[in-house]
Amino acid sequence: MKIAFLGLGKMGSGMARNLLHAGHELTVYNRTREKADRLGREGARVAGSPAEACRGCEAAVSMLADDHAVEAMGLAEVLPAGAVHISSSTISTALARRLAATHAGRGQHYVGAPVFGRPEAAEKKTLIVVAAGDAAQIERCRPVFDGIGRQTFIAGGEPWQANAVKLSGNFMLASMLETFAEAYALLRKSGVDPHLFLDVMNALFASPVYANYGRIAADEQFEPAGFALKLGLKDARLVLQTADEAAAPMPLAGVIHDRLLAGLAQGQAEMDWSSIARVAARNAGL
Amino acid sequence: MKIAFLGLGKMGSGMARNLLHAGHELTVYNRTREKADRLGREGARVAGSPAEACRGCEAAVSMLADDHAVEAMGLAEVLPAGAVHISSSTISTALARRLAATHAGRGQHYVGAPVFGRPEAAEKKTLIVVAAGDAAQIERCRPVFDGIGRQTFIAGGEPWQANAVKLSGNFMLASMLETFAEAYALLRKSGVDPHLFLDVMNALFASPVYANYGRIAADEQFEPAGFALKLGLKDARLVLQTADEAAAPMPLAGVIHDRLLAGLAQGQAEMDWSSIARVAARNAGL
Amino acid sequence: MKIAFLGLGKMGSGMARNLLHAGHELTVYNRTREKADRLGREGARVAGSPAEACRGCEAAVSMLADDHAVEAMGLAEVLPAGAVHISSSTISTALARRLAATHAGRGQHYVGAPVFGRPEAAEKKTLIVVAAGDAAQIERCRPVFDGIGRQTFIAGGEPWQANAVKLSGNFMLASMLETFAEAYALLRKSGVDPHLFLDVMNALFASPVYANYGRIAADEQFEPAGFALKLGLKDARLVLQTADEAAAPMPLAGVIHDRLLAGLAQGQAEMDWSSIARVAARNAGL
Amino acid sequence: MKIAFLGLGKMGSGMARNLLHAGHELTVYNRTREKADRLGREGARVAGSPAEACRGCEAAVSMLADDHAVEAMGLAEVLPAGAVHISSSTISTALARRLAATHAGRGQHYVGAPVFGRPEAAEKKTLIVVAAGDAAQIERCRPVFDGIGRQTFIAGGEPWQANAVKLSGNFMLASMLETFAEAYALLRKSGVDPHLFLDVMNALFASPVYANYGRIAADEQFEPAGFALKLGLKDARLVLQTADEAAAPMPLAGVIHDRLLAGLAQGQAEMDWSSIARVAARNAGL
Repeated sequence: MKIAFLGLGKMGSGMARNLLHAGHELTVYNRTREKADRLGREGARVAGSPAEACRGCEAAVSMLADDHAVEAMGLAEVLPAGAVHISSSTISTALARRLAATHAGRGQHYVGAPVFGRPEAAEKKTLIVVAAGDAAQIERCRPVFDGIGRQTFIAGGEPWQANAVKLSGNFMLASMLETFAEAYALLRKSGVDPHLFLDVMNALFASPVYANYGRIAADEQFEPAGFALKLGLKDARLVLQTADEAAAPMPLAGVIHDRLLAGLAQGQAEMDWSSIARVAARNAGL
Repeated sequence: MKIAFLGLGKMGSGMARNLLHAGHELTVYNRTREKADRLGREGARVAGSPAEACRGCEAAVSMLADDHAVEAMGLAEVLPAGAVHISSSTISTALARRLAATHAGRGQHYVGAPVFGRPEAAEKKTLIVVAAGDAAQIERCRPVFDGIGRQTFIAGGEPWQANAVKLSGNFMLASMLETFAEAYALLRKSGVDPHLFLDVMNALFASPVYANYGRIAADEQFEPAGFALKLGLKDARLVLQTADEAAAPMPLAGVIHDRLLAGLAQGQAEMDWSSIARVAARNAGL
Repeated sequence: MKIAFLGLGKMGSGMARNLLHAGHELTVYNRTREKADRLGREGARVAGSPAEACRGCEAAVSMLADDHAVEAMGLAEVLPAGAVHISSSTISTALARRLAATHAGRGQHYVGAPVFGRPEAAEKKTLIVVAAGDAAQIERCRPVFDGIGRQTFIAGGEPWQANAVKLSGNFMLASMLETFAEAYALLRKSGVDPHLFLDVMNALFASPVYANYGRIAADEQFEPAGFALKLGLKDARLVLQTADEAAAPMPLAGVIHDRLLAGLAQGQAEMDWSSIARVAARNAGL
Repeated sequence: MKIAFLGLGKMGSGMARNLLHAGHELTVYNRTREKADRLGREGARVAGSPAEACRGCEAAVSMLADDHAVEAMGLAEVLPAGAVHISSSTISTALARRLAATHAGRGQHYVGAPVFGRPEAAEKKTLIVVAAGDAAQIERCRPVFDGIGRQTFIAGGEPWQANAVKLSGNFMLASMLETFAEAYALLRKSGVDPHLFLDVMNALFASPVYANYGRIAADEQFEPAGFALKLGLKDARLVLQTADEAAAPMPLAGVIHDRLLAGLAQGQAEMDWSSIARVAARNAGL
């Protein structure tokens, strides 16, 4: 399949590489060219602009930082008619709706396909893909999904529904972090070692996600960040926006947002988002 | 070991049976005798009062409904000097401190040993035991812990610390329920099936606890209750009391408490505690 | 003073009329002309477009529904160089910053001047004006402020600071409403008449604002709305956005937002915003 | 009227003095006798024990620190049959119910009569009295209410209802404090002086209570405390307990409780309860 790949950050690099190794004809583009060149040495064609990347492609995958970056990329202006934009960035449901309409207006297709997983999972092709949009287009994109992840779920017929699922999933993760944060603060003030508690929780939940994040927070090893607090805050805002649009109150999302915002205000923007444990600890006088 | 077992409810029956089968010399007591008689037919001695149950015992295990039931049992008055009270009920840290002091004042010992697991786990001897108290006494009680659970964790040198861990663990579970509740409401209003979301979360968290509770809430199968909402509310209160004592603010615990309380006010006391999903749905106009 | 007035809704009509009666040379514009004609019969000139309204004016007052309406009006394109835009709408601090920059880029001036008070206060010239911006421009606008309100406060040298004050003030009001809502629910479930409680609060706070809103909520007289719930929700969003920009967590604003959103989801969009009391009551099983 | 007065703290002293000056035959008791002696010099009889104070009295007014102090006083054991206990302390509704039952069981009467107002108001006889209980007993106690306050409100036929009103009123005050706290933090981070905002709020709410507390928080003049944070926290707990009993969720009360608890954890127990503004400021990175 002739694929354009736009955005070669921590996540995008691994995804693009896997598509390349799966045998697709890949043209890559990144704002700073250096990262693209690395993939160029592995066999990808390197484009100097989004337009060049998309020329003649059948599908264009975008994996960018946020709403602003996706809008600025302006794929609708350069994608061939009939081609499909596979949008993997974590963006707002509102933008997803706008993009779907814009592409449709130009005879192009748009599929929402955000992913779950950290950079290592992107490397190892163990991402979880959540896709939504027109069923035929999703079938068409299967080789791409299979090329980047271990499992694909179909969220619905509207592309933005995939983003609703992705944001809800991040909310599940953030809630786990806040829960650990509060429990650890309580236990530290009760003279109980968070590591002991984590052992019990591992026995109870038996989840690698709990084990991983629970350990980071217990070790207070917040740097370097796996996922920066400022990005977690961005996602928390998107969750609340989606809740607002859907008229579905989410008090717990509000608590999480406030914690991340306090973390930002207290200088933790670049730390791992699990460092909200520090904010909880500070509020407990620790 | 000569053991008295007090409280043969859903949890206690399984625990007592396993102690019996492990070869301990067991005397059981229950407020309503019928449940005790069943164990009597399996080889336990059946006592007509706590005093009779504890006569000559080395350890007395209590597994009762709440603070009130444990206080009403009055074990300190009937336990032989030198014997140890293994307190497995989910009680407040405040009561645990009072009990420890009372027993100490009478030359008896007191160990906190609440457990994680549902009645099936109690039957199958797969409970997780969290013990705390004097190290020598905990060693002495090992055969009991090994007889009722699959793994034992030591939370600290003060018996009430085990209760702090138990309550924190229940808080982790309740938080998961509230998170599912909010996410499901959002997704239902977004036209996404909660079961689809649950599949994604199972792929992400890979936790049997998520799989189980997530399914109950997605199916809205809240009756019969695995764990009644009114009991969850009781535990939420204990968590907040412990937070209060430790001066560790827990905003998320507050959100959970309010949800459970709203569930109670709306007639869901006997439903499963995951039925807070209904409260969240109602607030979203569903 | 030659003044253009744009936006003749419930608030704008009264403000414009008072400026007219104070002897200013007033040209009015409203999207639906009928309201403008009424002022025309009282002596105002009626313009058919914002451009016509602003021709040759020294100051243009805008009093519109929301950010979108203010941006759509596009005053920067029609205001004479050297003239001042007096922005009285309740808009976001972000938009206020953008507008200030846009006007400055065209040699125009921009002053933030939102007001506190209901339509009756606008009629009676008893509004409270909160102004911010360049000190000289504020002095220049004094006759306008004096013409529409009873008192003017200067919030700072940046126009958006007036909006921060306005939004914070609305937050104070909304918080009072939520507090009444929770207290009334508690008291109704305790068999105490909210009117009795209101009498006590009137004796305690001695505030006409408490008396007025407390009575609406006690009477459950939510229609017709003095200030519609959907507008209160809009403002709650602006408060949270401002909190986000300033990195100042506001948990109570989050609670208020959720309540208003639940009210919207439950069909109360057009009711008075004090009808969040209904949401609180419903959560209490009433 | 022959009255016993128990509890001569900041509030009780002023109340007792006014009853004395109103011509009642007053016997006073205080745990530390010195404060009682001062009233003795003004004409009161000084008792060495609650029993001595109550001998032959028609009414006994108690004004003590908390539930524990009221229970420890044990008035039911010393009050003459037919006499009435006027309970003015800020206690839980649960204790009020227990006391009512205990007194009734001994042929005594019990009226709930908590008061609003600070020590100065107690001195100046400008307290607001909220009474509840049997109508005939309330009539009988009128001379006492008139002797200590400027206005009396009847909350209902059950004594504990007066406590529900008192606690709800304290919740209204605490909510105002938290609202100021969040608004001030936001405005400080926006470069706006809280004093300016307070001026606007005074123009808007026109409430002496807002003026007073708003100024304390703007000045950050938290010592000496008018009402200590630790006492505010005690009351917040009682509000939440009452909400729990009534099954009326109060999310805002939860936010307030957490703030006060954080204040306690951060060393502000003895500061004025309006010092939760410091906690909000700290969370905002100030």
